Amino acid sequence: MRLFLCRGLLLAGFGLLTFAAQAQTAAPTKTDSINIRRLYDEALLRGQSYDNLRHLTGRIGARLSGSPQAQQAVDWGKLTMEKLGLDRVYLQEVMVPHWVRGAKEKGEIKPAKGKGIELNVCALGGSVGTGGKLRAGVVEVKTWAELAALPAEKVKGKFVFFNRPMNPTYVETGRAYGEAGDQRRNGAIEAAKRGAVGALVRSLTLAHDDFPHTGTMRYDEQVAKLPAAALSTNGADQLSQLLKADPGLTFELEMSCETLPEVKSYNVVGEITGSKYPAEIITVGGHLDSWDLGQGAHDDGTGCVQSMEVLRLLKATGLRPERTVRAVLFMNEENGVRGGEKYAALAKATGEKHLAAMESDGGGFTPRGFSIEAPAAVVQHMQQWQPLFVPYFSGAFEAGHAGTDIGPLKDQAKALIGYRCDSQRYFDLHHTAADTFDKVNRRELELGGASMASLIYLLSKYGL
Amino acid sequence: MRLFLCRGLLLAGFGLLTFAAQAQTAAPTKTDSINIRRLYDEALLRGQSYDNLRHLTGRIGARLSGSPQAQQAVDWGKLTMEKLGLDRVYLQEVMVPHWVRGAKEKGEIKPAKGKGIELNVCALGGSVGTGGKLRAGVVEVKTWAELAALPAEKVKGKFVFFNRPMNPTYVETGRAYGEAGDQRRNGAIEAAKRGAVGALVRSLTLAHDDFPHTGTMRYDEQVAKLPAAALSTNGADQLSQLLKADPGLTFELEMSCETLPEVKSYNVVGEITGSKYPAEIITVGGHLDSWDLGQGAHDDGTGCVQSMEVLRLLKATGLRPERTVRAVLFMNEENGVRGGEKYAALAKATGEKHLAAMESDGGGFTPRGFSIEAPAAVVQHMQQWQPLFVPYFSGAFEAGHAGTDIGPLKDQAKALIGYRCDSQRYFDLHHTAADTFDKVNRRELELGGASMASLIYLLSKYGL
Repeated sequence: MRLFLCRGLLLAGFGLLTFAAQAQTAAPTKTDSINIRRLYDEALLRGQSYDNLRHLTGRIGARLSGSPQAQQAVDWGKLTMEKLGLDRVYLQEVMVPHWVRGAKEKGEIKPAKGKGIELNVCALGGSVGTGGKLRAGVVEVKTWAELAALPAEKVKGKFVFFNRPMNPTYVETGRAYGEAGDQRRNGAIEAAKRGAVGALVRSLTLAHDDFPHTGTMRYDEQVAKLPAAALSTNGADQLSQLLKADPGLTFELEMSCETLPEVKSYNVVGEITGSKYPAEIITVGGHLDSWDLGQGAHDDGTGCVQSMEVLRLLKATGLRPERTVRAVLFMNEENGVRGGEKYAALAKATGEKHLAAMESDGGGFTPRGFSIEAPAAVVQHMQQWQPLFVPYFSGAFEAGHAGTDIGPLKDQAKALIGYRCDSQRYFDLHHTAADTFDKVNRRELELGGASMASLIYLLSKYGL
Repeated sequence: MRLFLCRGLLLAGFGLLTFAAQAQTAAPTKTDSINIRRLYDEALLRGQSYDNLRHLTGRIGARLSGSPQAQQAVDWGKLTMEKLGLDRVYLQEVMVPHWVRGAKEKGEIKPAKGKGIELNVCALGGSVGTGGKLRAGVVEVKTWAELAALPAEKVKGKFVFFNRPMNPTYVETGRAYGEAGDQRRNGAIEAAKRGAVGALVRSLTLAHDDFPHTGTMRYDEQVAKLPAAALSTNGADQLSQLLKADPGLTFELEMSCETLPEVKSYNVVGEITGSKYPAEIITVGGHLDSWDLGQGAHDDGTGCVQSMEVLRLLKATGLRPERTVRAVLFMNEENGVRGGEKYAALAKATGEKHLAAMESDGGGFTPRGFSIEAPAAVVQHMQQWQPLFVPYFSGAFEAGHAGTDIGPLKDQAKALIGYRCDSQRYFDLHHTAADTFDKVNRRELELGGASMASLIYLLSKYGL
């Protein structure tokens, strides 16, 4: 145990010494075990995450950055934290993009002969509209190399249809999402470079169904901005099959989405001041904005209510943290990360000392553990606490990516921590109309909040 | 490792020596790791559990022992295994109880003043009917001690309302179910002993909703057989609240359920003969019968399709087992365990050598690991394989209860093994109209089949 600490000091170097409160020992005690049990009991008996989520998803609903609902969510988040009797609740102003889907969104396969076949489509977030109906041939590719190898005349004037499925053999679905996501993000740019008129992208999910999944996309100022839409996986399979028999078919897309001027919005922040080391900050957060389809339940209403619940659990159990614990409802994770960037920039500007930051943005499913982005010695230091989490099935403490909103804090915090829950169902719902409250299980959600609170309690007690 | 084996030999004693094929080493090799990956790949790419379950739940549906649907399920199970090209597929005849719910099932609170309030009720399995409408006062208890302490006149002629909730603080919900289940099983007997006319039982679930949960109950030939019904948790809360304000209210119950003569039914068995030790048998099973509400999806259609999938995965990957692997679809787990008892009795009568038996009857949710009922040395022996399962989130190998249908094999098999998946959602659905196919996630189900096949592969290779 002491060995871990020594290695931590050696590896982390001088930066560590600026923290006043280096823990002498971080080996968990029986008291820790009891206190963690108290946090879980409180969550399972009187947890408020689920009821808070019902309000956020049912009364406010989808809340894309810049929308009136996003502002309602800010007001609600602030009020909800104020009711917790925290030491401080405040807003951080941030300008955010304002993209709107518009009323028209329609896609149809037009076979050479016979009737058109309507497919469920949705504009990717940030896409330009089609300016009326856009009809063109379709060329299907599964890799960038395939696109590059196509003769110019096969692409020019057509829709490029990016149809590479997510890899179903990865047990952790996020890995499959990561690998397939380049099509959605860069499809319109690469299609434009080859003279296409639009991009159609297979939805990023391992489910076989009719929901199109939206999500961010990029443009490159050097090439034309093409409209880009997602097809459901069933729709993509159907289009692919029809193309084989009828390569001359066309696709008609109509989308009235557009980008409006930026809007003033906010991160919502609430904190409990540390009893011993108030200047050392532990952040825990999720993102308050969501895509405009569905209700933003698992993405990321769950992360918001769990982050607020961490503070409530600490208060309700009387476990006043020794370091300052701050819940942040970040604005604009989905299409800009402006809130996350603003939070880190303000922290830097004011010279705040950030011990660690935790993010919950993988859904509110049954807990697994934590993914830690930190030097190996810090990861090992935290792994001493694993045994405390095994009885709650949250004992997976692994090195890995933590989260998007806390990413900008990387150089300021000693550890970034991603709360990890079971990933099997997440991409079935992610960025679709199906991401609704009824998909969330009360106990899974509350257990997640308790897992997060337990690790924050240990961080606040022992430091890093 | 050898130490483990030696201790195994010492503890398990002579019985062990009757197995020809004691493994020299059970430490997993790189080949094992690769073969397990192949099993998972096959399951995730081409798994048939989900499609089989769709058929069983959608085309056949609920299949209580003795019902025409139970017979259809037997025929379907046999045909499905025959299509797998196994070495043997056969039926084991077994007589089963035949209880039917009947057309009438209604419960109503009758306040002293004002209109009646209808509650969702369902007869507990095996209950006698009410013979028309049965109206009586209600006395609520939460413990047996409370019931025993009540003066006789407070109970006589009334419904005893057993309203002890499941304990929400247990992380493993099965534990809470186990502790609260005595009310459902013994409520009618204890109520009868005190002169009551019926039993009303709070549903065994941690959810707050309107579904009543059925399940088995017992009678004692020494006392009257009282009708017994489950109330939903919302209904139970409502009745409890109204009773406080209006202790003189009455409850009217009408149920036309009855027990018919026993019916001939079957276990369905399919097997792959072991390539080296054909006489040593590893059983893997679930139960084919279900309660008559819902579709018997998570209880236990999932266990049936996973057990058959174990055989399919071994065949599809070419991993012919060294010991005989036998999938069993047990009949009548829910209200008699006749199939499980028959299976063990036949095994004993024919002198079969059973190495291990595995059961999947906790739902088709995301895998956790295995619960092992065996001497400590055998558990430790199997725990050597844990590291192979950690990448698949199935690494929890713990000593504990294995399963109801394989229970009768306890003295014949060296290890009984319960497949364990996440338990948070299970009792939301268990024994209700909500236990339907749409609650099952394809990947969670297929991952479970792969976990089970992987452990069976190791058992068939290394023995115990």
